[in-house]
Amino acid sequence: MTNIIPNISVDCVVFGFDGEYLNVLLVERALHDDSGNIVFRDHTLTGYHIDRDENLNEAAHHILKERTGLSDIYLEQVFTFGDKNRLLKERDQEWIRHLNLKIDNRTITIVYYSLIDNTKVKLTDKGDNPNWFPIHNLPELGFDHGEIIEKALEVLKIKARMEPIVFELLPEKFTLTQLQKVYEAILDTSLDRRNFRKKVAQMRFIVALNEKQKGVSHKPAQLFFFSREVYERTKKDRYLITI
Amino acid sequence: MTNIIPNISVDCVVFGFDGEYLNVLLVERALHDDSGNIVFRDHTLTGYHIDRDENLNEAAHHILKERTGLSDIYLEQVFTFGDKNRLLKERDQEWIRHLNLKIDNRTITIVYYSLIDNTKVKLTDKGDNPNWFPIHNLPELGFDHGEIIEKALEVLKIKARMEPIVFELLPEKFTLTQLQKVYEAILDTSLDRRNFRKKVAQMRFIVALNEKQKGVSHKPAQLFFFSREVYERTKKDRYLITI
Repeated sequence: MTNIIPNISVDCVVFGFDGEYLNVLLVERALHDDSGNIVFRDHTLTGYHIDRDENLNEAAHHILKERTGLSDIYLEQVFTFGDKNRLLKERDQEWIRHLNLKIDNRTITIVYYSLIDNTKVKLTDKGDNPNWFPIHNLPELGFDHGEIIEKALEVLKIKARMEPIVFELLPEKFTLTQLQKVYEAILDTSLDRRNFRKKVAQMRFIVALNEKQKGVSHKPAQLFFFSREVYERTKKDRYLITI
Repeated sequence: MTNIIPNISVDCVVFGFDGEYLNVLLVERALHDDSGNIVFRDHTLTGYHIDRDENLNEAAHHILKERTGLSDIYLEQVFTFGDKNRLLKERDQEWIRHLNLKIDNRTITIVYYSLIDNTKVKLTDKGDNPNWFPIHNLPELGFDHGEIIEKALEVLKIKARMEPIVFELLPEKFTLTQLQKVYEAILDTSLDRRNFRKKVAQMRFIVALNEKQKGVSHKPAQLFFFSREVYERTKKDRYLITI
């Protein structure tokens, strides 16, 4: 990253689901003075300035890998943030001066998002101390990254209602309780169990197996799987709002 | 626009509906040599580099107004295009050299879109000859603006299925045939009349009036209106894909 463009960056909002809660991947931003004493410490999304020779999505993948070790995950563009005052808070200015990166105050950032099972990936600390934080208990955030997370969450909620993305967070065989938990975590709401099951029953792509849970202390529940084939062949043009 | 940022621009994809077809607003790009002879002429979206002191959406509104006269229209961010080769075609390079604008080859552009009734607005020609072109019969386009229009169209189709945006293109009182035509134009498909009417009958926010068309030569059709109140009060959380 020797040839960065000083006024264009990418930021990645990686959402992780752990079976119960929705989390966000953050890295640490710690500013030390010349004697090595800490001036401040907070957190930011994984991001950096793009390289002159990279496409935008290449930059997102490259930066995520370099700072957290995550690779080969699906990233999708969400939104671009470029308000003229977005880097002008005192702490952010101090950080920019300290790094001496010749970053332009008028930096715009292209935001990417992702949704993964965060129990299945391993983070690599290359000095930024990357970690998962529950969406409802985020630490203090630098820049406008709080707003960015909010926007990405809004997009995630819409996507979860439109596309079968939740199944990527579930084991191949899942119970309806597990399925309900994913939706509840993403939509940040509690759903009525009976209504939820009625709706699921109408979705022919969620298919019951001839199998029940094993090794559980409670009454074993019915297992289901997501059939992409059925989904592709039964989804209709969603051209009118009836839901 | 004296203080532009040379590597950040905005482009506006303004879709217009004229009662029958979907159109796109384009401006002319004509390069003349020193003797005033035309070197090439093609079309582009309305766009320009942002000013150092403008927010992104401010820039979109300002540039659209300056080049076409359109003001006070709703613009929404779609996507950001920033591939490293997006300005390297010979003709685009020639254009950039000619303008002597010191535009950076690595320009990224933030795309905004809009949907309006193009029979109701008046364009002002400030030298760029702005005009509406049917989406199925676009002239030769500069830069990557063909790809940009495709992406915006994709987003428009999704929006039209999720939000009641089509009603902004219709008169306050409309017939079901008019409503079907809007959907057909946006979704670029022909819809079965009976199926369409069955679905519409389920949407309580499309309300029949005690009124029929007047002054038509054929049998006057029933008139309807879109009730935003009913829409807001009957729309449910669209949290599961069942359409």
